[in-house]
Amino acid sequence: MPNGAQALMKTLVDAGIEVCFSNPGTSEMHFVAALDNEPKMRAVLALFEGVATGAADGYARMADKPAATLLHLGSGLGNGLANLHNARKGKVPVVNIVGDHATYHVQYNAQLQSDIETVARNVSPGFVRTSQSTEQLCQDAVEAIAAAKGLPGQVATLILPADVSWGEGGKPCAPLPEPKLLGADDATLKTIAEAIRSGQKTAFLLGGRALREPSLMAAARIAAHNGVKLFAETFPTRMERGAGLPPVERLAYLAELATLQLAEYDNLVLVDSKAPVSFFAYPGKDSYLVPEHCTLHTLATPEQDALTTLNQLTETLGAGSAQPELQAPARPGRPRGKLTAEKVCKALGHIMPENSIVVDEAMTSGLMLNVMTAGAPRHDMLTLTGGAIGQGLPSATGAAIASPERPVYALIGDGTVMYTIQALWTMAREQLNVTTIIFNNASYSILNMELERVGAEEAGEKAKSQLDISGPVTHYAQLAQSMGVHGIRVHTTEELLKAMEYARDTPGPHLIEAIVPESLNGAKRKVLPWLLRSLPNLPRPVTKALKKKIAP
Amino acid sequence: MPNGAQALMKTLVDAGIEVCFSNPGTSEMHFVAALDNEPKMRAVLALFEGVATGAADGYARMADKPAATLLHLGSGLGNGLANLHNARKGKVPVVNIVGDHATYHVQYNAQLQSDIETVARNVSPGFVRTSQSTEQLCQDAVEAIAAAKGLPGQVATLILPADVSWGEGGKPCAPLPEPKLLGADDATLKTIAEAIRSGQKTAFLLGGRALREPSLMAAARIAAHNGVKLFAETFPTRMERGAGLPPVERLAYLAELATLQLAEYDNLVLVDSKAPVSFFAYPGKDSYLVPEHCTLHTLATPEQDALTTLNQLTETLGAGSAQPELQAPARPGRPRGKLTAEKVCKALGHIMPENSIVVDEAMTSGLMLNVMTAGAPRHDMLTLTGGAIGQGLPSATGAAIASPERPVYALIGDGTVMYTIQALWTMAREQLNVTTIIFNNASYSILNMELERVGAEEAGEKAKSQLDISGPVTHYAQLAQSMGVHGIRVHTTEELLKAMEYARDTPGPHLIEAIVPESLNGAKRKVLPWLLRSLPNLPRPVTKALKKKIAP
Repeated sequence: MPNGAQALMKTLVDAGIEVCFSNPGTSEMHFVAALDNEPKMRAVLALFEGVATGAADGYARMADKPAATLLHLGSGLGNGLANLHNARKGKVPVVNIVGDHATYHVQYNAQLQSDIETVARNVSPGFVRTSQSTEQLCQDAVEAIAAAKGLPGQVATLILPADVSWGEGGKPCAPLPEPKLLGADDATLKTIAEAIRSGQKTAFLLGGRALREPSLMAAARIAAHNGVKLFAETFPTRMERGAGLPPVERLAYLAELATLQLAEYDNLVLVDSKAPVSFFAYPGKDSYLVPEHCTLHTLATPEQDALTTLNQLTETLGAGSAQPELQAPARPGRPRGKLTAEKVCKALGHIMPENSIVVDEAMTSGLMLNVMTAGAPRHDMLTLTGGAIGQGLPSATGAAIASPERPVYALIGDGTVMYTIQALWTMAREQLNVTTIIFNNASYSILNMELERVGAEEAGEKAKSQLDISGPVTHYAQLAQSMGVHGIRVHTTEELLKAMEYARDTPGPHLIEAIVPESLNGAKRKVLPWLLRSLPNLPRPVTKALKKKIAP
Repeated sequence: MPNGAQALMKTLVDAGIEVCFSNPGTSEMHFVAALDNEPKMRAVLALFEGVATGAADGYARMADKPAATLLHLGSGLGNGLANLHNARKGKVPVVNIVGDHATYHVQYNAQLQSDIETVARNVSPGFVRTSQSTEQLCQDAVEAIAAAKGLPGQVATLILPADVSWGEGGKPCAPLPEPKLLGADDATLKTIAEAIRSGQKTAFLLGGRALREPSLMAAARIAAHNGVKLFAETFPTRMERGAGLPPVERLAYLAELATLQLAEYDNLVLVDSKAPVSFFAYPGKDSYLVPEHCTLHTLATPEQDALTTLNQLTETLGAGSAQPELQAPARPGRPRGKLTAEKVCKALGHIMPENSIVVDEAMTSGLMLNVMTAGAPRHDMLTLTGGAIGQGLPSATGAAIASPERPVYALIGDGTVMYTIQALWTMAREQLNVTTIIFNNASYSILNMELERVGAEEAGEKAKSQLDISGPVTHYAQLAQSMGVHGIRVHTTEELLKAMEYARDTPGPHLIEAIVPESLNGAKRKVLPWLLRSLPNLPRPVTKALKKKIAP
């Protein structure tokens, strides 16, 4: 009879969990040993837990099924918390396995003893369980897996005491049956259909799984049939887009811009998304971004299946045979001249192959990313769902493991890249096809903007130095090389293009460090037109209203 | 009238808190802006929260007063959790300031919203408070500071909503009065004195603040007068040692060895320490390490002042005029021949200047560190109090800021260094006198040992690959250079010595990467004598007993 860890490994694999992103310690050694008996389980080692959890997130976004993590006690969970937060906010399934001391060892309050469940509740409000016996372990595991995979997807934390793991008498369990997908009720469908037909202006806010092709096509049929506008939530978990797919405009990060995007709509229909709110609060500015005159409807809660509800609504509206608007192929031209963040985005749109995966953690430097890749060949975009920076490199790592045949581009700001820089090592170890592009502007650029937005305008040198990472300027290409990743620093647009072409044609991980000026390092009069260019569909004229909002 | 952040800044400085280790985000921008008005507050930027919290820990160990941290919401706290855990276990005072959304923004469940208090309780069981108003903020702050500084020292978490920070009407508060130090009661003193005088063998286990010079001298007087043995806890927060101070033997990490160290004692007296237990649980082995025949006494709980109780006991025993045994100066000779981990430790003992600070996170590679530095000039040793790896570089950063005139040596294993590698950037930015020595053996060496110790001996290639970090081997010297730290890789003992002498004579941060063979990569027959050499005072003959324990 297998021990607990061996039975758990079989249970995981039987439930389709075939990758474990791990950073183990002593209490997880039996789980590690059990890897040898289970050829279907791939273990991917990370040098830091935030890499493991972020990779599990990125993997699940692309594989459409959870991976397992393997973390070491409360401190390991703490290190992995930020990216589990991103997974939680993105409704991404993760089976989060945290090793613990043997049950009888807890009473001694040894060095690494801490309250793991307490920490786990932050990211796993729906499922935290410490398995109490080897016999019970696999039943706990299948329940954790079911909780993770349900709608909405979630982080399910299974705490695994060492003696439960090493104990004899493990009993593998078969996975629980898949739950039935929930649709919308008739009353809701009727109300929303009436609003759409009323002649009022209506927009959909698509989020979560509503940004995948089948849902997008259904929504686009309704849009074509009934003149509905399609928005995507600001930070999509995974958005399928590009040539041949319905074009959907993302709500802007800046509340001032999002408000303008939403201003003209009388009805906003949530489809696996939540009512838009400001990312942060700002003195004297609204947090809630739905206009006062606008009625909010919910077609699909995160507990419901977005596609089912969209199909129901299509039928109600008789939109089934409408021709959806599809994005025409339109790559931007080859960028020339002085290298800027915008030209990096343009180069990506110019070069990236079909079926690329784009991980966007470029912050201010990525403002033009949507515009520049809108007509590029079909691709997926993964974003920073929970706002906890340090998600990009790990997410790209996981996405590349889920989709080894697809090129992955990770666009990362230099203010965020260091949080989980250890991911480069895992990329090298696993020889993943990830091209990381770092925007090196030697600044927490977004915070310079935020410093003004919160009204702390009088900031002096000492305050500003807290947002300045130019002393010293990190050499990211050299840093990548130190971990076995091909790294190059580029200063010109020509160098950038050459490096991107080389990376595209050469398997394995690459890091391109683009030296760019700070995107927002200008007077507001320069920033404003630039922000407007990032939202080409914003109804004109808006400049005056915008100026008032941005700089009242 | 100042805003909340400005009043808080003044309150912190008035309470003697003069350094803030920060990794701010938008919700902390008013705190950042308030730095400009307070010349006495030094803000030290970290690129990762674990660096900020570990630096606050190391700073407080050397400064004997807390620093503040500045973290961004629940995810930032998560990233800082592991090193706050180490501070908690080390009874180190930290005023842990975590920014939060504005109070009225919480209801909107924005991207970064999470339950911060829940996470904080893991490391701040004694004090977690979300300040509810600008008016109340500074009173909350002085209570947090008092909680942090009390005995035992602790991590006090003050959660600072953005609107409490930016609100007008802040009222700075004066610090609360220092609490009275508690000693031992007469009955305890009498019982312990009787045990010591009984003729039975008695040992003291000194921990926490009992490992500082005044307490060490008091304990050593008692030792000289009454034939008591002095042990130090396995992972001291800060241990003053070297030539001219009483020599104290640290309990070994390996439970098998610690058991042998304690075997002959009938009484064990705890002085600001806890009863020794095994770091982890192992199948079939004891977790509790106090021998069955041994009576446990507590002279000072962590709530009491160790020095007061030792002075009381000295008086009770009439030991006040005894001459304590003091360590004679005895540097090891200049190491020669093939470079090994042991020779790195020997080189440190040979070279390090008086008043050095040694941060020990060398794991298996540091086994000979205590022996090799025992007779070196007086120094402080800071260790991994909570077992959460990734403590060394941040702790060294904080120690160097607290003690700018003292050389800091950080001895770090390559299995632990990557967790908080971003500390190198802060060392470069602040031009700290830290010499980091990385033992590059391309392995989680301690886990290879632990894999066997937990009985998972059948481990195959797949399991072992989870403990092998040789593919790729990180180039740590290059990595250091990428962040502006002078880095060099050494392969020979001569190169090592030359690099250490250069670092000693050249201000600013240095990183020396020593390529060494894996310490424990041998047959048990080789490991055994080596373990024994690390504990030269172990009563002989022990080899047979030890063999039985290590390899039963």
